[in-house]
Amino acid sequence: MQRYFVTKDSIADGIVTITGGDVHHIVRVMRMEQGDEIICSDNDKRTYRCRISSLHNEAIQATILEEYGQKSELPVAVTIAQGLPKGDKLEFITQKSTELGASCVLPFSARRSVPKWDEKKAGKKIERLNKIAKEAAEQAHRDRIPKVEKLHSFQELLGRMKDYQHCIVAYEEVARQGEPSLLAKALARVQRKQSLLVIIGPEGGLTPEEVEKLKEEGAALCGLGPRILRTETAPMYVLSAISYYFE
Amino acid sequence: MQRYFVTKDSIADGIVTITGGDVHHIVRVMRMEQGDEIICSDNDKRTYRCRISSLHNEAIQATILEEYGQKSELPVAVTIAQGLPKGDKLEFITQKSTELGASCVLPFSARRSVPKWDEKKAGKKIERLNKIAKEAAEQAHRDRIPKVEKLHSFQELLGRMKDYQHCIVAYEEVARQGEPSLLAKALARVQRKQSLLVIIGPEGGLTPEEVEKLKEEGAALCGLGPRILRTETAPMYVLSAISYYFE
Repeated sequence: MQRYFVTKDSIADGIVTITGGDVHHIVRVMRMEQGDEIICSDNDKRTYRCRISSLHNEAIQATILEEYGQKSELPVAVTIAQGLPKGDKLEFITQKSTELGASCVLPFSARRSVPKWDEKKAGKKIERLNKIAKEAAEQAHRDRIPKVEKLHSFQELLGRMKDYQHCIVAYEEVARQGEPSLLAKALARVQRKQSLLVIIGPEGGLTPEEVEKLKEEGAALCGLGPRILRTETAPMYVLSAISYYFE
Repeated sequence: MQRYFVTKDSIADGIVTITGGDVHHIVRVMRMEQGDEIICSDNDKRTYRCRISSLHNEAIQATILEEYGQKSELPVAVTIAQGLPKGDKLEFITQKSTELGASCVLPFSARRSVPKWDEKKAGKKIERLNKIAKEAAEQAHRDRIPKVEKLHSFQELLGRMKDYQHCIVAYEEVARQGEPSLLAKALARVQRKQSLLVIIGPEGGLTPEEVEKLKEEGAALCGLGPRILRTETAPMYVLSAISYYFE
């Protein structure tokens, strides 16, 4: 069943009112009619199965049938801190991280990041990434839309580490040094409902200096298996492993 | 260090001779010179660290320095049987499955597969996919290049199941029925060095009839977490989980 995210105040008296871009999606893309069922989520605690009661070009109303019990959120709140990669890879990472259950994507400018965003463009880019996260969350039947945060400098990233209960750094050199189980050890320390920051370098990886600073701030270094993963594959590996481990 | 796959008979008397497309890569793309080091693998059991001793436009010779000890193959031989997806997704799946350690990619025409390949095009497409697998294997520091097999019909896929010691089907309906740990149970039955066939539907999934037939042939149905994954994300989830579990 198709899922749509609505604001909290669009749910009132057993009726959900849908406006904006989702109206076009329901009417034109899905070609739904009165009587069809959809899932509406308020992007927080409430998710309902609803039946469409009226369709107009500006707004759609749907009657709440029942609370939708199935929960689809990862038991750990995972933030993917991604060193700014080339091209449209950040869009890909946002889409796949949303599917695989991330709570947040936090791009940062790493030493080896090739693209440089100017402030004017950055706002538009982040806006677009948040739209991608919303659409991917709807398709993946998530209960929450992950947030894509503003581009952080490396210094700002260091400052944010204290906001998380655990922090791991994907660092292929550790795997090469023959210590394969560091990720398992790090995940064993994480409890359900805790927060975890996963830091991933751009193409070419983090520099030894960056890794040193992250270690000083308390991050655990982990390898992601014996093969060399591209920067955009690393978050998928970590999120899949976390889902497998906790779910 | 850059890695290249060579044929077995291009290794003789302590010298590796590289010909074909890799010459262009070494000379023009990597701009390597005499004395630079590379890794050469015979796509079977032998991987060597080598030093380039001569460069010509037709062939490059490299002297073997030592056996390269680090192994990067998954301990289980995983074949991803992928229901033919839309657009260029099979290229993406081939690249990512190679990075994540698959031994083989086997595309098949599922009931809900939208693209239809004619025989003339199919050969070229499979050739291109094998080239993508080779390049991804080099970049990921694999010891073997995964094979991309010819497009199978669903009936042919059923016939191939007996070639594998274990077979699982990614089926989201199982996850919805509230049995989250079937993948873990299935992986617990797999021993190192055994072979595992992972069957994944195209967009829209496998039909209930297809799932029934696979079940009759002895496949185990598994969910891939409580979220709905796109067809191209499912193989990555399974391979990451297998790597995490076995490595």
